[in-house]
Formats: sequence, structure tokens, C-alpha cells
Amino acid sequence: MSTLIFGHKNPDTDSICSAISLTYLKNKLGIDAKACALGTPKKEALFALNYFGVESPCVINEAKGNDIILVDHNELIQTVDDIKEANLIEIVDHHKVEISTDVPISIRVMPVGCTCTIVYNLFKENNVEIPKHIAGLLLSAILSDTLLFKSPTTTEMDIKACEELENLAEVNKEEYAMEMFKAGTSLDEYTISEIVNMDFKEFDMAGKKVGIGQVFTLDIDSILSKKDEFLEFINNTDHDMLVLAITDIIKEGSYLLYKADDNIISEAFNVKAHQGVFAEGVVSRKKQLVPNLTNMVK
Amino acid sequence: MSTLIFGHKNPDTDSICSAISLTYLKNKLGIDAKACALGTPKKEALFALNYFGVESPCVINEAKGNDIILVDHNELIQTVDDIKEANLIEIVDHHKVEISTDVPISIRVMPVGCTCTIVYNLFKENNVEIPKHIAGLLLSAILSDTLLFKSPTTTEMDIKACEELENLAEVNKEEYAMEMFKAGTSLDEYTISEIVNMDFKEFDMAGKKVGIGQVFTLDIDSILSKKDEFLEFINNTDHDMLVLAITDIIKEGSYLLYKADDNIISEAFNVKAHQGVFAEGVVSRKKQLVPNLTNMVK
Repeated sequence: MSTLIFGHKNPDTDSICSAISLTYLKNKLGIDAKACALGTPKKEALFALNYFGVESPCVINEAKGNDIILVDHNELIQTVDDIKEANLIEIVDHHKVEISTDVPISIRVMPVGCTCTIVYNLFKENNVEIPKHIAGLLLSAILSDTLLFKSPTTTEMDIKACEELENLAEVNKEEYAMEMFKAGTSLDEYTISEIVNMDFKEFDMAGKKVGIGQVFTLDIDSILSKKDEFLEFINNTDHDMLVLAITDIIKEGSYLLYKADDNIISEAFNVKAHQGVFAEGVVSRKKQLVPNLTNMVK
Repeated sequence: MSTLIFGHKNPDTDSICSAISLTYLKNKLGIDAKACALGTPKKEALFALNYFGVESPCVINEAKGNDIILVDHNELIQTVDDIKEANLIEIVDHHKVEISTDVPISIRVMPVGCTCTIVYNLFKENNVEIPKHIAGLLLSAILSDTLLFKSPTTTEMDIKACEELENLAEVNKEEYAMEMFKAGTSLDEYTISEIVNMDFKEFDMAGKKVGIGQVFTLDIDSILSKKDEFLEFINNTDHDMLVLAITDIIKEGSYLLYKADDNIISEAFNVKAHQGVFAEGVVSRKKQLVPNLTNMVK
């Protein structure tokens, strides 16, 4: 019976890619292992799998009787429900730990930005060549977990791994990351109304009914290409004022579509206002959008 | 302030040698670290340190405020008392785990026979050359923990590590191990009476008062060279029969000194009895010495 290798429930790109990559390594080392997942891959991981021509891992919800290796998690609450009936033989992770075992097992935890950075090093330590598709998945996970090295969890090891992986995967990591982030945060399957109302709050500002919506996406173009439709929808609401912030966490700012006087927007966010203007540094509704607008509507 | 690296309380050869070796590696990697111990090294570790010209690590009983790395242990009960006031940054171990951390740290646990086997691999992974004295300490710990590969905890990785370490340390591992075991289990500082009574039990066998003592040592020659003194002591006790088993765990048998008819000893242990005879396979008082003698004294 194959050893099952899987990441945490509600799997992110790292959980999917580290399971597949470590499985590839184990197989190369002569170990019968199979990549699995405790849930279906999300858009970002699917983009990476598709880009590098790799099949999705099979989704499981039990592991009873199997040897298992956990990647990208170690806590009981995040793993397969019947873990106590499985035989845990190894953990590869980059999170804080809460581990208790009855016998010695293999544990490899490192305080790095991504499990795939550890898996990359396991390939190196075992002198196993990393093929293009595995390099691509490792790279995808590291770029995802470190948000293209912008996350404070990023370490030198993550960056160093990506230098080689970028070459092996035959991509430009900045361009690839943006494509992957766009795919992962695409709002294409939602209607205009759904996007505006996705995370929408109403405020009373000096007697005026003000609505502020915020969405996070890196697929900005797809939103702004429908600017007129968004504006038609926004202008037809019964709000005295409405601001939709389309926040780009990589550029660390928000594109604004609004039903408001240009003057108010210009002063509130220190920009030369126009529909779709980019407000640099504006990423928080609570700390920026709301107080800045409240100051203007007096 | 240096990072403190130390093994468990009541340190064995692995705890001493893995702390020193990992410290050497960390220093080579540019990390300010210092080898410590939670107790003074015992005879076996002292032999290894002395053989390879290495100083004993400093003994500490607190680590408050320091960055610390635990080797050869991970459980709170086995470590420094004030660990909660120290900053745990790494664990290198080969035992079952009971670890809970608030943040991600480095954890390297492998189900191998000895922590020093993991440290050996860390040298390899980091491409750091192992100097003779460190090779000697690593080898000593692995030979000690695996009992010269006789322990069931021995793995291929332990054996493979020793192949290279033996050359680097410029010793013959079998001969060196025997010397080290002899030094570690030497009973030289005890009197004849202390050795006989070290682990001595009395039994009533068919109305006869029978005493059975057992000591474990690999320094057999030193005992047998005092055979006459042992026999004088043994013969002067008030026991009807007395057997002292000097057990050699490497040869897996016991040398016997006795106050008894040769015939009884011959039949009980299937040997041609004489003082100092080696009874092959006889290592357990409870399962072998007592029942075999009881069967004879009827």
C-alpha cells in the first residue's frame, strides 16, 4: 500500500505542490508514495498544475491503515480526521508545531516561508535532479506563500531556492507570479453586482448614506475593462456616495471606482481623481477608506 | 550572546558529542554557538573526549535569556529547568517527540540510532568538512548508541555514517568501540565486595541459600585478573551457593565466578565448568540464571 503524502484541509498552493513534489522525490528514492489532498485545489493551484501539465492529486478524506506523510501542516485539527488510525511516518512543515508521537518519526520543520523551500532542499540533499514540472510547482508554491517575497515570512532560503527554480521551470518568476496571482484572485465568475457586494459596508457620514465595497484581486484589468458597467451599477444604487476599492496587494494600493464628487476623492486619498484612479498605499477599509472619507463628508 | 547547544540531563555520550559536533558545524556556518551539557560527562564520553583531545563542554543548569538548540532530546522534563525563559530555536533529535512551539522553529528529528548520525548528515548537507576530532566524537556516539550496531535501533544511516567517520577519525571502529566500552563500563574504582554486591539477590532453592550477583562490564580482563581475590571473597560468604555473572553485552554472554559444584554449573549452563567460564547467551538473571540454577538444586 502506497504511503500517502498530503497537505492540510482547505489546501492552498503550497499544500498541493509540496505533496506532489515530495511524492516525486520519494518515488525517485524508491519509496512507493502517492500525492493526495484533503480538498480540491483552488484556482491558484489549478493554474500552476495546468501551466506545468501536472494532474491534480486525488482528494481523500480518510487514511486509515496507511503510512502517511504530512506536508505543510502538523496539527491534528488541520489533518485527516482518522489520523489516529493511520501510521504517521514523517512530517515536512514550516509552521509552529504541536506534535506528539509514540515512536521516533522523521520530522523536518524549518522557519521558512514555504514548505516547498524545504522540499527543494530535500532534493538537493538527496542529489535528485528537479525536472521542469516539479521545479514549476515548487516555484509556484514559494511565490504564492511569500507573495513574491513581499511577505514578512520570506527568508533568504526561499529567495535562493527560487533563483534556481526559475531557471529549471523556464519562466520569469515575476511575470509568472503575476499571471498566477491573477488567475488565483480572478473574479471572472462573479457578476458586477456580486463583486460590488462581495464585502460591502454602509456608513452614515454626516447624514449621508455612504457605501464602501472592497475586493482583493490581482486581475485588475478584467475589472477595469468593465468600468462602464461597474459605474452604471454603482450610480444606480440609492447611496449618496459609494466607493468600490479594488485592492492590489502586490502594488499595495487600490483602484477606485466611485459615485462621488471628484474633489472629495482627490482630497480624501491625495490623488488626482478619475474613475479607476490608483490610490497608492490605500489597502485597509477600516484604517484608511472609512476615516479618509468621513473626514471629507462633513 | 552565544547560542547554547546542549543534550539531555544526565548526559550520555551522544548528548555530549552531538552538542560539541553541532556547535562546531554552527561555528563553521558563521553562527556564534557554544557547546554545553546539563551534567558532567560520564566515563565513556570522557574516554572519547580524551582520545580525540577535545575539552569537556561547560556544565550549565540554566539558559534564561539565551537562544538554545536542543540535541538528543526534546521533552521538557529532560531539558534545562528554565527552558521557558530561554528562546528555543532548534531541535536535533532521534527520539519520539513531545513538542509544542508558539512560532516556527527548526526541527530535525529522524528515526535513526543516534543524534550524531543526523549531525553527520548536517555536515554533508552543508558541505562542511569533518575534521578528525569531530569525526571521532560522532563515531564514538554512534558506536555507543547502537552498541556497535548490535542495538535493534541501528539503521543503515548509522552504519553508513560510521564507514566514513572511521576513516576520518583514523581508528578501527571495532577496536575503538571495545576500548571505549571497556572504559565506559570499567569497574576499576570499585572493591571486590562492592562489585559482588552491586546487584545481588538471594534465593531459597530447596532449602539452600543461593546468592546471584550480576554486573555488566566490557572490561572483563580487569575482573578476571583478580579471579583469586573474587573467589576468596565469594567462598568466605555464608551462602551455600553463589554465582557472580560478569555479563558482556557485546559477546552476549556471561563469565561466571562461583561457589558451587562444577557439576551443577556445567549442567545448569551447558558448559564445561571452571572458574571464569563463559556461558554463551546467558545475559538475564531473571530468565536464565535463576531458573537454570533452581532446576539443578533439587
